[in-house]
Amino acid sequence: DAPLTVIAGPCQLESLDHALMIAESMAAACAEAGVGYVFKASYDKANRTSLKGRRGLGLEAGLDIMSEVRERIGCPTLTDIHNEEQCEQAAKQVDIIQIPAFLCRQTDLLLAAGETGAVVNIKKGQFLAPWDMPNVISKVESTGNERILLTERGASFGYNTLVADMRSLPTMMKTGYPVVMDATHSVQQPGGQGGSSGGQREFAPVMARAAVSLGIAAVFIETHEAPDTAPSDGPNMIPLDRMAALVASLKAFDDLAKADPLRV
Amino acid sequence: DAPLTVIAGPCQLESLDHALMIAESMAAACAEAGVGYVFKASYDKANRTSLKGRRGLGLEAGLDIMSEVRERIGCPTLTDIHNEEQCEQAAKQVDIIQIPAFLCRQTDLLLAAGETGAVVNIKKGQFLAPWDMPNVISKVESTGNERILLTERGASFGYNTLVADMRSLPTMMKTGYPVVMDATHSVQQPGGQGGSSGGQREFAPVMARAAVSLGIAAVFIETHEAPDTAPSDGPNMIPLDRMAALVASLKAFDDLAKADPLRV
Amino acid sequence: DAPLTVIAGPCQLESLDHALMIAESMAAACAEAGVGYVFKASYDKANRTSLKGRRGLGLEAGLDIMSEVRERIGCPTLTDIHNEEQCEQAAKQVDIIQIPAFLCRQTDLLLAAGETGAVVNIKKGQFLAPWDMPNVISKVESTGNERILLTERGASFGYNTLVADMRSLPTMMKTGYPVVMDATHSVQQPGGQGGSSGGQREFAPVMARAAVSLGIAAVFIETHEAPDTAPSDGPNMIPLDRMAALVASLKAFDDLAKADPLRV
Amino acid sequence: DAPLTVIAGPCQLESLDHALMIAESMAAACAEAGVGYVFKASYDKANRTSLKGRRGLGLEAGLDIMSEVRERIGCPTLTDIHNEEQCEQAAKQVDIIQIPAFLCRQTDLLLAAGETGAVVNIKKGQFLAPWDMPNVISKVESTGNERILLTERGASFGYNTLVADMRSLPTMMKTGYPVVMDATHSVQQPGGQGGSSGGQREFAPVMARAAVSLGIAAVFIETHEAPDTAPSDGPNMIPLDRMAALVASLKAFDDLAKADPLRV
Repeated sequence: DAPLTVIAGPCQLESLDHALMIAESMAAACAEAGVGYVFKASYDKANRTSLKGRRGLGLEAGLDIMSEVRERIGCPTLTDIHNEEQCEQAAKQVDIIQIPAFLCRQTDLLLAAGETGAVVNIKKGQFLAPWDMPNVISKVESTGNERILLTERGASFGYNTLVADMRSLPTMMKTGYPVVMDATHSVQQPGGQGGSSGGQREFAPVMARAAVSLGIAAVFIETHEAPDTAPSDGPNMIPLDRMAALVASLKAFDDLAKADPLRV
Repeated sequence: DAPLTVIAGPCQLESLDHALMIAESMAAACAEAGVGYVFKASYDKANRTSLKGRRGLGLEAGLDIMSEVRERIGCPTLTDIHNEEQCEQAAKQVDIIQIPAFLCRQTDLLLAAGETGAVVNIKKGQFLAPWDMPNVISKVESTGNERILLTERGASFGYNTLVADMRSLPTMMKTGYPVVMDATHSVQQPGGQGGSSGGQREFAPVMARAAVSLGIAAVFIETHEAPDTAPSDGPNMIPLDRMAALVASLKAFDDLAKADPLRV
Repeated sequence: DAPLTVIAGPCQLESLDHALMIAESMAAACAEAGVGYVFKASYDKANRTSLKGRRGLGLEAGLDIMSEVRERIGCPTLTDIHNEEQCEQAAKQVDIIQIPAFLCRQTDLLLAAGETGAVVNIKKGQFLAPWDMPNVISKVESTGNERILLTERGASFGYNTLVADMRSLPTMMKTGYPVVMDATHSVQQPGGQGGSSGGQREFAPVMARAAVSLGIAAVFIETHEAPDTAPSDGPNMIPLDRMAALVASLKAFDDLAKADPLRV
Repeated sequence: DAPLTVIAGPCQLESLDHALMIAESMAAACAEAGVGYVFKASYDKANRTSLKGRRGLGLEAGLDIMSEVRERIGCPTLTDIHNEEQCEQAAKQVDIIQIPAFLCRQTDLLLAAGETGAVVNIKKGQFLAPWDMPNVISKVESTGNERILLTERGASFGYNTLVADMRSLPTMMKTGYPVVMDATHSVQQPGGQGGSSGGQREFAPVMARAAVSLGIAAVFIETHEAPDTAPSDGPNMIPLDRMAALVASLKAFDDLAKADPLRV
């Protein structure tokens, strides 16, 4: 019943200055609104729709920026990892390591992530039912690590479309672990633009608000000062200059939801 | 931006006394909470999963009860109609006539409903995208009737399962017509119990709250004093004695949503 | 294990001459191939996407043409009915009356159709699992009529898309009733063109062949001499001049399938 | 238009003797039927539903068995790889290396697989549309390797269910690469048994036959002498003693399909 945390940042790291600019802006907006803040960014987009999509700065340069953001802004940080080898290094330089949705059943990756002792944010696969997550969770728990977050990011709904099932949130909350709504990727249109994924940015605040009203722990929102020219996920990122208002709005729904918890 | 309306009542009419009991209880709860109230009940369950399912009191007896409830309780009423012939009679005795989801593309039914001049609540078919509703709407509008409500009640998601896509609500709101969330049927499991549909009653308040937080006009919730012995939709109806608390809770989210409208 | 029957004709009746032209052509192609033939056409498209879509000739004029086709060509005929009142008249003038998919759970329509004693072809709703069909069937059976056909025409798969699940065919075959594959409507894209449904004509032979290879009783294919200018379902109808080759090809797969029945 | 190839074997390697027994039996059945044969088995089940599921013999022991089978039986072999490091070694000891469906968008894995020069079988993700595969293919092609196979193994259809869309096969055939139908995994029920995936073995021959009738290059079928006690995928494997009849039956449909190619 702690107040909402906002996990936000650009889809992919572009430079130290860019990361600091976004983190500083978001940290200020979150402090102002009274919500927690975690800086999120990726050092590698390892599963782009097309080979031509930009992948990012890479592990070493990316993690160095993540460390720098944490130190300078003073906020916790999150990044996604893509194989077992990356887990240990990432866990040294960020607070939360994230299992990508496509990889959420890869046992060795879950074990390696768990063994770092870092917080592990598991994104539920687009192909997975919410009640299948305990099997996924127990892979991480088997390492002795119970610092786990669970993220809804939409389920496959026909071709090139995802749907976010609100029932998924209370279902995953029953595990006792904090539940996160990924408002950005749940409105993605996978492969919807041929060589890249489309998205419906206008619906990200819809997903965020609906989910926050259910009393979730955190909301995950990608943001960029100029989404339409961002190297990835532009169609579903929220412009940075709208984030302060969005966060403040979500906080009001969070207050109400935390004061009046749903019993499922 | 009028305050929320709650459309509630038993799935099917059982008797005048039963209808009055529920309508009275709900009217009091809604007045207390400061939300509008519409009594809802069906005189015929015309598309039961199985022939063995109880169908109800029939048109004449049912509509007489509906009139009586309206007169005695002083609330507007809603019932669903199933063919063109029923529209005129129903429109005389209830305020809102409802197009069942399976029938939402039946042109003659939409025209007959529109021609009554009554408010027409169109349930979006389980097989329809929200952006397909303008085609449905224009069938009713062609009669000169623009007193239209649009209801989300879930979309087919694999077999025996529905999912309520929250994007559907703001998408339908763009038509300018009031949008209703059917929190009861969107958690139905069609055919899920072999001879009848199952449901997940515990998720109805989840759907209602998420939808109300988006600023919808009304929420539709079926209720019964003893859902497990109700003649239909028992698995997804909310016990009557929990409705006052639910309505009051929804009102708080509605206040917040109406004060801070989403812009999609 | 009787040889395949082909149910084919235009989506909607246009004129007697047009109907005779298609029926004659198809009857010849089917005789040549050694398959049974049923002429199919609709007198009313009662659930067009948009009000602007052409609906057809109407009950009386349409059924008169159906009678004439039956008499002159000597083939059985099929048409779809849309309410209880139409059943009796339709059953007098055609051999098989068809329950539209959207209406497959409307109890009164199923009863009225059953009571005519005509063969009743039930299209499985886009929202229904194949194992839910016994509930539908028993509504017709309750009238004493066991002359029933079951048709697969695709299931909702996200928005504006259908998918034909091949498991549906053997599942419905277990009921003992003849199973029909609707190769035309299972490749429809409902609402996919805004004011009308789109379709993928090129996949209709794919669906037909896959289904016939499983040993079904009949295949349903809409055809037109100029699909692109047909009043409805143009995008998924097969040009008439390709039907002879298609039917001959399907017959070869049917022979093989009937000689080597699947055991599910 | 080469005759059908059957890719078959146990879900996971159990021992050299077991692998040889199955390979020998399948090779004989395929030779008898006049179809090609590829032995398939996994050395590691890297994404079991539950941590308790048996994972297999591991890379080194597994690949040694694969080599031995190839040498002794004289058939090509296929195994799936799970990270970049495994590709090179696997490519030395098997003929075809397979990208698991969940991993089909992992760029580095596709590149590493392509760089081995071995044939690469890409399973289409449960979350991917068939028309998205060219993006996946071009990742492998970028390495200069155009020895590619594409496999349909079902798409997510609601929760815990897959559906095999027959349109996927001709759509992928348009790429010019050989298309494989995985008749075993497309009838899997992911997570359907709580701690493991369920399946519908009885439908595997349905999928195989429907797909073969469309003229595909190969069919993928897991088999075991005692599926119900197999360490994984038991619910959807075909008993070994039924494979000869199944293969012979498929060959007849393949002959017909190759003589009468569909034009999509």
